[in-house]
Amino acid sequence: MKISVGAKTIVFPHPVFVVGTYNENGKPNVMTASWAGICCSQPPCVYVALREATYTYDNIRRRRAFTVSIPSEKHVREADYFGIVSGRTEDKFSDMKLTPVKSDLVDAPYVKEFPVVLECVLFKAVELGLHTQFIGEIKDVKVEDTVLKENMPDIEKIKPLIFNSADRTYYGMGKYLADAFSIGREKK
Amino acid sequence: MKISVGAKTIVFPHPVFVVGTYNENGKPNVMTASWAGICCSQPPCVYVALREATYTYDNIRRRRAFTVSIPSEKHVREADYFGIVSGRTEDKFSDMKLTPVKSDLVDAPYVKEFPVVLECVLFKAVELGLHTQFIGEIKDVKVEDTVLKENMPDIEKIKPLIFNSADRTYYGMGKYLADAFSIGREKK
Repeated sequence: MKISVGAKTIVFPHPVFVVGTYNENGKPNVMTASWAGICCSQPPCVYVALREATYTYDNIRRRRAFTVSIPSEKHVREADYFGIVSGRTEDKFSDMKLTPVKSDLVDAPYVKEFPVVLECVLFKAVELGLHTQFIGEIKDVKVEDTVLKENMPDIEKIKPLIFNSADRTYYGMGKYLADAFSIGREKK
Repeated sequence: MKISVGAKTIVFPHPVFVVGTYNENGKPNVMTASWAGICCSQPPCVYVALREATYTYDNIRRRRAFTVSIPSEKHVREADYFGIVSGRTEDKFSDMKLTPVKSDLVDAPYVKEFPVVLECVLFKAVELGLHTQFIGEIKDVKVEDTVLKENMPDIEKIKPLIFNSADRTYYGMGKYLADAFSIGREKK
């Protein structure tokens, strides 16, 4: 039997994505976005949804670019920290002893130590209410050579974080289950 | 060292969400959406990004409502099937022996056997290119009583699917790692 739990923003799984931007003086900042994901194939687009109160909101409005850095399990403390404090008062890279790298394609920094990064220019901003959805056109995806397998990112080496929004915890990735566009063709 | 893999729509993790709609005659349909996620807290919103060629695209345009049903690991075959065939030629519920339930809040059906469902009315449609983003306002979240813990959905009982877009495979959930808005406060 299905029980109502109310009009909540709960889905499973949620990703954990870290948005990289520069402020007006070129200071690099990172923020863990609650809401983010892919939203178009052509042009290839990823969005981050942000409250106007955030530092990153102003940075994207101004510089019209951002990166999405994807942390591994071992970066859970850093990723969590990036969602707790504000870049207005803290230097988050320095606090976590991580390295900002200037993208060679877009006007934004990414986290050197994280295994995957998407470099984006602002494509569209959509006002939804408390959150504004910043949709970025993906200019490139860069992947650490240690997590590649046959020139493609290997999820088992990346070990991405999963956010559980129901009780605000982090989880790791589990096991391979099946091939997509394949198991559905099998007869029961 | 970071290696470029091109401007691809690759992030980790991707969710696996099944969109439920009615056609003009009230026939229920389901489709596994490649791109979907939460995008606003107030109003609470979830989006699905669809190509105009899909049956679901027409259904949402017409009925201005949809549901998002979240499958468990054990539904991997059904979820994959829902992304392979079209509701124009198939009755996907019947093919997979699953049960459409009419939402009591919105003009759309959901999958009875899946553990979590979000019921949505169309809030905004955003044209991005190949995909149109249908943003739905979440009117309620309903959860199977067997996967609740203290009246909230329990991710360890839900066992959601994870899509690996890099090599098009499905994975399961892994282990608890840490509490959010907490581990980031700890000193190293």
